Order: sequence, then structure tokens, then C-alpha cells
Amino acid sequence: MNRRNWLSKATLGSTGVVILPHLGIAMPKTNLGDTYLRLASNENPYGCSEQVKKSFLTSVTAINRYAFPSIPQLKIALAKRFQLTAENILLGAGSSGILEAVVHFMLQREGDVTTATPTFDILPAMLEKFGRKSHYIRLKQDHTLDLDAMLAKTQEHPGLVYIVNPNNPIGTVVASQELRQFITEATKYSYVLIDEAYLEFCDNPESMIDMVINPRVMVIKTFSKVYGLAGLRIGYGFAHKEWVIELEKFMIFAGLPISSPSFSVATVALDDENFVDFVVQKNTESKAIVVETLSKLEIDYIPSQTSFILFNISKYPTDFMMDMKNKGILIGTRDYLGKKWCRVSMGTVEEIKEFTKVLTELWKA
Amino acid sequence: MNRRNWLSKATLGSTGVVILPHLGIAMPKTNLGDTYLRLASNENPYGCSEQVKKSFLTSVTAINRYAFPSIPQLKIALAKRFQLTAENILLGAGSSGILEAVVHFMLQREGDVTTATPTFDILPAMLEKFGRKSHYIRLKQDHTLDLDAMLAKTQEHPGLVYIVNPNNPIGTVVASQELRQFITEATKYSYVLIDEAYLEFCDNPESMIDMVINPRVMVIKTFSKVYGLAGLRIGYGFAHKEWVIELEKFMIFAGLPISSPSFSVATVALDDENFVDFVVQKNTESKAIVVETLSKLEIDYIPSQTSFILFNISKYPTDFMMDMKNKGILIGTRDYLGKKWCRVSMGTVEEIKEFTKVLTELWKA
Repeated sequence: MNRRNWLSKATLGSTGVVILPHLGIAMPKTNLGDTYLRLASNENPYGCSEQVKKSFLTSVTAINRYAFPSIPQLKIALAKRFQLTAENILLGAGSSGILEAVVHFMLQREGDVTTATPTFDILPAMLEKFGRKSHYIRLKQDHTLDLDAMLAKTQEHPGLVYIVNPNNPIGTVVASQELRQFITEATKYSYVLIDEAYLEFCDNPESMIDMVINPRVMVIKTFSKVYGLAGLRIGYGFAHKEWVIELEKFMIFAGLPISSPSFSVATVALDDENFVDFVVQKNTESKAIVVETLSKLEIDYIPSQTSFILFNISKYPTDFMMDMKNKGILIGTRDYLGKKWCRVSMGTVEEIKEFTKVLTELWKA
Repeated sequence: MNRRNWLSKATLGSTGVVILPHLGIAMPKTNLGDTYLRLASNENPYGCSEQVKKSFLTSVTAINRYAFPSIPQLKIALAKRFQLTAENILLGAGSSGILEAVVHFMLQREGDVTTATPTFDILPAMLEKFGRKSHYIRLKQDHTLDLDAMLAKTQEHPGLVYIVNPNNPIGTVVASQELRQFITEATKYSYVLIDEAYLEFCDNPESMIDMVINPRVMVIKTFSKVYGLAGLRIGYGFAHKEWVIELEKFMIFAGLPISSPSFSVATVALDDENFVDFVVQKNTESKAIVVETLSKLEIDYIPSQTSFILFNISKYPTDFMMDMKNKGILIGTRDYLGKKWCRVSMGTVEEIKEFTKVLTELWKA
């Protein structure tokens, strides 16, 4: 890792801040071509395995071809892996492609959205653009979802409950037994959508996929995080087949937005359990390094079950994001509980060592 | 071109027919992994140029990264190329991604769709799923759009007019001056969407892009055809900036469904005018070979301004599509004017020579 290289580029980079429309996270504005250390977008720093890379490179011969036959093939592969049928599976260009279909589904009927705050809130934010009401339920004191309050709210204002578990940008997870009970109760009033983008990073990951036997439950997952394929835009959802049919009505051809190389890569990545294990293990290592540094510096943080950590920067005297950027590191910041926080994505162990070194320098300056 | 190779695979291939939900075109069912000669989907048989290939291969390093910064960059490149501003540009995962946004836009307001028949009709077909009314206007005797009848219909039932020019699956083009007049009149009642997916193949291509100064006009184009990137799913549209803002409301993050490699490749492909010229020239050569054979065999066909040719197979005694498939060649068939037609996509010159050889054998058998 050549930090001097980042630094020289950093000083040449564009300045300014971009606020992502979701998450309320402020990120430094930058360009793809630069060499900043990217710890702001919860990307997988390990990229992909050699098999996946090979599959991608081979797919160059198919970039002029439509991938129609790959759509049912990927559905079948996912069904097999998650012990469901292809009819339970919805594909999208990233899980945002599926969230979009859910938005359009909601726009065709009555109902409000209940979700947490903070959370990854592009779904409620999009519905609000069309005048629909969202109810944001604050987290409990331990930073976990307040499922009782969410249930009460959706009883009062039925429609859709959107839950990100583990929760982004907080990093906490809700106990699976509690979540199961919540889903059973909440679906008496509303549809329930569980977003498991970060589930694989948990200590004891327990998916809600088996609950899609209930016609009002959907679980969405993605190849963007643990599989390291954010740029290839492959999301997938599981729901009762009746709901899948309904949702596919909102897509011209469900799966068509996914590129041919993405399909080639997805099926290879899905079988690549060694890579997933490697990423999770390295992510745990990186988190331990960050936590150790935060503890040493007496910085308050929220224990994370994900690939990022939220820590409190209220005591930092100047603009932490800009100071980090000037050191060649991109992170995101956001307000929570009236304080200022930094969300740092886990880079490689090497990158995280660089991050903690810079953090320590800045904090002690 | 090793035909024996196709043949050995052909006999191993799956059988059956798949009807595409658009176009009413029946195609033989097959898989991506096979080695059929694919002349059924209007793909560009030349793939891409060496520069584009290189750009794709290099992009492997970015498959784990989100392409957020590439979205405005591609918009700027397209704006520059087409002498508009980035605010006039809408990006989608293929032009179908943009058509989808237009569908959602229409679902939020009153109005019917007027279009031609036959045409590429995924947009009206999707609206019909939601109970919306489509008016299909038959082509004139010369197989071109009946713009007078389309204008009369949209005056009576305002909403949206959807025109594919040149028209798929027919291959004809409408005179640009007539189309301009039509747009000016029709936008007094309706929005007008012109799909120029095949425009670059015309003898005298004249885009309607300059007409998007009118707030009710949109022109959509794609990297899927002449640029040879169907598998990378990159479509783009031009409209008045007010309409772009409206349409982007229907997308969680406009451009986000496009993959990182697609962005890398698109900007390279856009500057690659030599490749476009090469493809158009080869396409013309291929069409000449097909036309010569059809004339020799006294088969009726519709002169084409596109990368495919529609010809009449009513006189063919058995199942033309299946007979072709058994010879290792995939084509599509459809009904038009109470007769049966074949739509054959232009392969490479070599592939088309193979196609005409098989066609001649079958026709004379």
C-alpha cells in the first residue's frame, strides 16, 4: 500500500462534499479514477476470487449478447442454494433494483411505510417523493431496532415495514427470534421486507428466508457486499411466488437489467464459499484493529456485526471528513442522537492499519 | 465458421419454442452456452473493437466498486457528443430501463398509449398489465408508419405516442420531415417517445434529438445495437430537463443499475467511430447478400434500413424456425398481414453466407 501515492493524488483531487440521498451520509466528493483509500461505501476491499476474475474475463466474448437464458439459470442456482424454488426468486440490478419494484408496487396501492431511523432509507425516501408517508422509528438505547414500536406503528398505519438487518449505517443486529415474532405479527397488517445485505458478516447469521412461505414477506440479498461485486449490480430477493409475480409486473423483463458478465460471475461467486469465508474472517480482523484503536483513543463506537463501524467524532475539533480526505482516505459522516459520527467501511487489513494510523495522528494532533 | 460444430451441438440442444413477450416473435428455445448461430435477437455479431475489449478487461479491477462517479461522467460525455447538456440525459440499464421509467410515469397519470403494429411493444404491453389502454395503428401498405392515423388516434385518446424508427421488426424508416411534423402536432396532445435503437443502420440517419427542446419529446438510444454491447445493458435517453427530473423520480438512483464495467466501456465505445462505421458497412454487405438470395428464391421481403430483414415464409411447407434450428441457426418468426414471416438478424458476412446457403437448401428441398 503506497500512501504517498494516495497523498499526491489527494492533493490533486476535486474538493467538496456530496450528500448521498440515502443514509444522510456525507461523503467527500471524488472520482473513480483517483487512488483514494475508499472506506466510505461499504465495498468489499478484496474484490473477488481468482475463479470469479477468470469468469469475468472470459465473459468478454458475450458482451454483445443478450443474457435472456441466464435469467432462469441464475434463479435456479439461487433456488438450489437457498432451498426454495425459482418461482420464489426475484432478480434486480442490485438490491436497489428490487427495492424499486417494491416502491412501484406500493405506489399502486394504499399504505404507509414504517422503518427505523437511522437506516438505509432509499425506499421510504423514494416513496416520499410521491407524497407517501413514512414513519421512522428511533432505535432503542442499545442502538437496535425498536420492534415493539415498529409493530404498533404499522398496526396504526398499515402498508409496508422495511427492516435492514443488520442495520446500515449502525451495524447492530436484532435477535432472530424477536424478528421472527415481529414478522408473524406485522404481516397481519402489512407487507414486511427484510434487507439482509450485510447478514453474512454477523457472528451468527440467521436469514429470514424460510419465512417467505408467508405471502407478505420478502427477504432481499445482494452480491455487492460479501461477494465483492458491487459494480456488477446483482441483487436478489425471495418472496412467496404470488408476490414475485406481482412485483415482476413492475419490471419490463425481470433480470434483464443485469449484464451478461454479471450473470457469468454470479453463478461462480455463489459457489465460492472459501472466498466468502476469507472475506468474513478478514473483515473480523479489520474490525478488531479499528476497535482496538478506538478504545485506545477513548472514542465511543457502536459494536458492529457488519463490514463497517460507526464511531462518535463529536469531540474532534475540525472537519474530520475533510481532514481524512486530505490524508487520502474517504470516509462518511452523519448525525445521530444529536452527535456527529463517522462510518468507516472495513478496508483490507493493510488498509485498515493505514486508516487507524491516520486516525491516531489526527486525533492526537 | 465451423458449421459441423454447430450441428453437433444443435442435436444436443434443448427443443421447444419461446415466445418473447414483446414483438410477438417466436424464437427457438436455447441456452447461452451453446454454439448456435444466433440470428434471432438483433445482436451485433462483431462484438466490440479492441479498444473496447481492453477497457472491459481492465475494468475487472473495479467490479467490487460502486460506479456513482461514472454516472455524471457518462452523462457529460453523451451531452458533448449529442450537443445537449447533461441535464437532458437519462441513463438506464438498456433502453428498456428507460422505457420502464416511462411506464411508471404513465401509471401516475391518465392517458392511453398510441403505437404502431407491428412494433417493439414492450412499453404498451407493460402498461396493459395495469389495465391501461393501448391503440395499435396498422402500418401503411408500404410497411411504414401511418402517422396521420396515429395523430388522429392520439388526439382522440391523448397520453403517449411510442414510435420505433426505424421500426422493429419491420425494418422500414419514416421520412424525417414527416416525423418532425408529426412530433410537433402530436405533442399538442401527448408525450412523444421516439426509439432510435437502429437509427445508425439507416442510409441517411437523422435523429430527432434536437426536438427534445420540446418538453414533451423524448428520444431513446442504446449501446446494444451498433455499438455491440447488448450484454452490458446501457441505454440512454434525451428529453427536456424538466421531464428528465420527473422520470428520474421513478428510479432509485438513475444510472445505478448500470454496471461499473459498462460505464468504462461506454465512454470508450462512444468515441470509437471507426468501429461504428465498420459495423454499418458490414451490415450493409450482409443485407445485400440476404437480399440477393431472397430475390433468387423469389421470396417476398421488406427492404430494411436496420440490422435485420423480414421476409415472407408463408410458402414454406414445414416449420421454418425448427428446420433452421436443426441446421444450427436461430431465427425468429412472426405473423404479419395474415402471413408468416421470418426476421433474420444480420450476422457477420461469413455467418450470413452460411445462413443463405442453408436457406437455399431448405427452400429448394
